[in-house]
Amino acid sequence: MPAKNDRADEGPAPTKSEQTRALILETAMRLFQERGYDKTTMRAIAKEAGVSVGNAYYYFDGKEHLIQGFYDRIAAEHRVAVREVLARETDLESRLAGVLKAWLDIAAPYHEFAVQFFKNAADPDSPLSPFSPESEHARVEAIGVHREVLAGAKTKVPAELRDVLPELMWLSQMGLVLYWIFDRTEGRERSYRLAARGARLTSRGVALARFRVLRPLVHEVHELFTDFLPGMTKVLPDPSARREAPAPDERP
Amino acid sequence: MPAKNDRADEGPAPTKSEQTRALILETAMRLFQERGYDKTTMRAIAKEAGVSVGNAYYYFDGKEHLIQGFYDRIAAEHRVAVREVLARETDLESRLAGVLKAWLDIAAPYHEFAVQFFKNAADPDSPLSPFSPESEHARVEAIGVHREVLAGAKTKVPAELRDVLPELMWLSQMGLVLYWIFDRTEGRERSYRLAARGARLTSRGVALARFRVLRPLVHEVHELFTDFLPGMTKVLPDPSARREAPAPDERP
Repeated sequence: MPAKNDRADEGPAPTKSEQTRALILETAMRLFQERGYDKTTMRAIAKEAGVSVGNAYYYFDGKEHLIQGFYDRIAAEHRVAVREVLARETDLESRLAGVLKAWLDIAAPYHEFAVQFFKNAADPDSPLSPFSPESEHARVEAIGVHREVLAGAKTKVPAELRDVLPELMWLSQMGLVLYWIFDRTEGRERSYRLAARGARLTSRGVALARFRVLRPLVHEVHELFTDFLPGMTKVLPDPSARREAPAPDERP
Repeated sequence: MPAKNDRADEGPAPTKSEQTRALILETAMRLFQERGYDKTTMRAIAKEAGVSVGNAYYYFDGKEHLIQGFYDRIAAEHRVAVREVLARETDLESRLAGVLKAWLDIAAPYHEFAVQFFKNAADPDSPLSPFSPESEHARVEAIGVHREVLAGAKTKVPAELRDVLPELMWLSQMGLVLYWIFDRTEGRERSYRLAARGARLTSRGVALARFRVLRPLVHEVHELFTDFLPGMTKVLPDPSARREAPAPDERP
């Protein structure tokens, strides 16, 4: 059975409940785009979708949860869209380029929304940030795609970097997303070129990771991001907490 | 004689004209902070500073130029503030850590402004972006500081990377600035820790650049940024222009 958020997956026809959920999500996305995220209320979304306010809240606890639902849907659509390229290519650069291109294709209809929504999502402490604990489900999915990119490539990856590189690759994808948000070229043509260039650069970087002398640096870059971006790992939410106070489960 | 934008430099006492310019700039910064950048007019700035609107426009062509004046001033203050640490330290990590810490010290009073101003400066195509052609003066100053950081360090830097590394170090400083904007910790304490960690990471990265096998990757990272960030170099403003049309001076 498909997971609640995994509608893009193949599987049995969606249930009535899944259809209602999808209808609310689509209505919300449309209203967010038309009226702006800040000005759209749950009440307005429910009315426009033709469901009761109580019903809307049954599926989504609030606007922030609608955004998480949207992130989850993009992530699920992306997983499906990359299957073909990941089944076909064994070259790391081609695999990564295909994955990034597929993301740009899927995100295309939401560009206008992303531009106006950016101010809500740019703050890493906001639940709407891709780095927030609230966005974990979508993030884990997206990092999983990069894990597959690496796992199926003929480029050898040292065992000690197998967990670290997919997260760094996803971080560089977030850099591409940031670039895409501000890209005003026709058809986001520059973003597509950046995706191709980024894939080449990343695959060269990964190839260099066979040099032992470099690996501590890769670990250190990864540690810096996980220590300073909230929600990047559940274990280390705040570097100060590690040093200045025991974690909750360490307390007597 | 000090340059027009170089008031923080030591030198002769400021002229009447320089004082008026500084007064307008300070008034503008205060009003931007109090009322928001979008809602503050040149007229209001002139009135509050006690000068005529014509006089305000004599010094600054508009609000965007006030922001450039502000960037220039921060850059000039920073150059002065880092003199002591750059004269004293020869260790690359200490030099860079000192430079980043000095920036956070200088920027501290403007944090609130930076938070609300961010939506104007985040767009790399905006003249207010640190990557814009309009911000070039402040950017060149800031990259110059990183050039000094490297030049005075005992770490050997390969000649072929001497122009590339300061720009990459400045780019990572822009990453710190982005982090600082969203930092809500008391006294921006996490940003100071990120500055220290970033300095350590960068100095290790620079030390690794002695390995010849890595240098093409450093060049490629640099090229990617200069090709895709407008204004990063005047020579290559748009990668598509290079391929699809001859540069103006190549035309017959």
